[in-house]
Amino acid sequence: MILPNALEELITEFMKFPGIGRKTAERYAMYIVNNFSVENTEKFGNVLLNIKKLIHNCPNCGLITDQELCQVCEDTQRDKSLLMIVESSKDVFSIEKSGEYKGFYHVLNGVISPMDGKGPEDINLSTLWPRITDNNIKEVIIATSSTQEGETTSLYINRVLKDVDILVSRIGYGVPVGLNLEYADELTLSKAIENRKKM
Amino acid sequence: MILPNALEELITEFMKFPGIGRKTAERYAMYIVNNFSVENTEKFGNVLLNIKKLIHNCPNCGLITDQELCQVCEDTQRDKSLLMIVESSKDVFSIEKSGEYKGFYHVLNGVISPMDGKGPEDINLSTLWPRITDNNIKEVIIATSSTQEGETTSLYINRVLKDVDILVSRIGYGVPVGLNLEYADELTLSKAIENRKKM
Repeated sequence: MILPNALEELITEFMKFPGIGRKTAERYAMYIVNNFSVENTEKFGNVLLNIKKLIHNCPNCGLITDQELCQVCEDTQRDKSLLMIVESSKDVFSIEKSGEYKGFYHVLNGVISPMDGKGPEDINLSTLWPRITDNNIKEVIIATSSTQEGETTSLYINRVLKDVDILVSRIGYGVPVGLNLEYADELTLSKAIENRKKM
Repeated sequence: MILPNALEELITEFMKFPGIGRKTAERYAMYIVNNFSVENTEKFGNVLLNIKKLIHNCPNCGLITDQELCQVCEDTQRDKSLLMIVESSKDVFSIEKSGEYKGFYHVLNGVISPMDGKGPEDINLSTLWPRITDNNIKEVIIATSSTQEGETTSLYINRVLKDVDILVSRIGYGVPVGLNLEYADELTLSKAIENRKKM
């Protein structure tokens, strides 16, 4: 049986998302056909048509924004001496929720991954070096994830900054707060022991 | 931290789907921003803008279609004496995959559910009765799911057809009890059709 063309196209669009297979895509597409109003469906369509025009990366730090400069770069209350380097805009949103950090960010929008043919020139690094030297930054906190690619990226940045008179630190890795010790994996536990602090 | 407006709107749209919470919606929205090309995003938007114009319910059987009549109703090779009653178009697609059934369908596009205030007048029944009496149908197979609402709907239809000289059967219990029909595998569906019982 052949599905109506327009439905098949909608299923194909949903299958482009990570973790959505044929069955789930069919379910979402059918949900639109059966449960969405005409107005709602058109609104969803128009939001998609406009999103790429409205959202772009902040030319200064790489964070996604709908303004000329992002709200972090525009914030005059922040600590100019601190710069945190993260992989993606999502990481900034997560860290901002914690409320712990008051410095600025630099969003790489990717990681160095030789396996995928992605080198330092493929991520948002070219604007990082002038930012560090021009802005009286005292500490750079590298907060890339603890995957192999995140570690590679971290080591690369650290090596480049070796001769610059700036404190370069790596975000602390250990057992997540609230997690029972028995559920932590071995690598996390080994990091947690390595990063132990005097009480 | 306030997310860009357009991004927040996109997240809201994704949260309207069943089983998608805030975190997953953020993930999908960010995936569009970071990984979809402008062309792909616009294509997705245009597919959504057109879907409601292109897809409608077949006026004869209720199946979704982009033609005047659906491909099942247009199929002259099918057995005119058999009519299967299902809850949704998805069920027709699943049953067609099993290849076991060669009759026609009637799609209710819902179930009788007193708990949700949905009675017989809220589902596609008004066109069912004339279809049965006008078309020399010999057997009506009720293939609503084995949920409480599916059973209620089945019993209601059976009661209305009690005085009509037609064999009314219920789809065979090869379909696991409690499982929604769309999740049944093809072999189970094929068995279920083969094992249907007279009511």
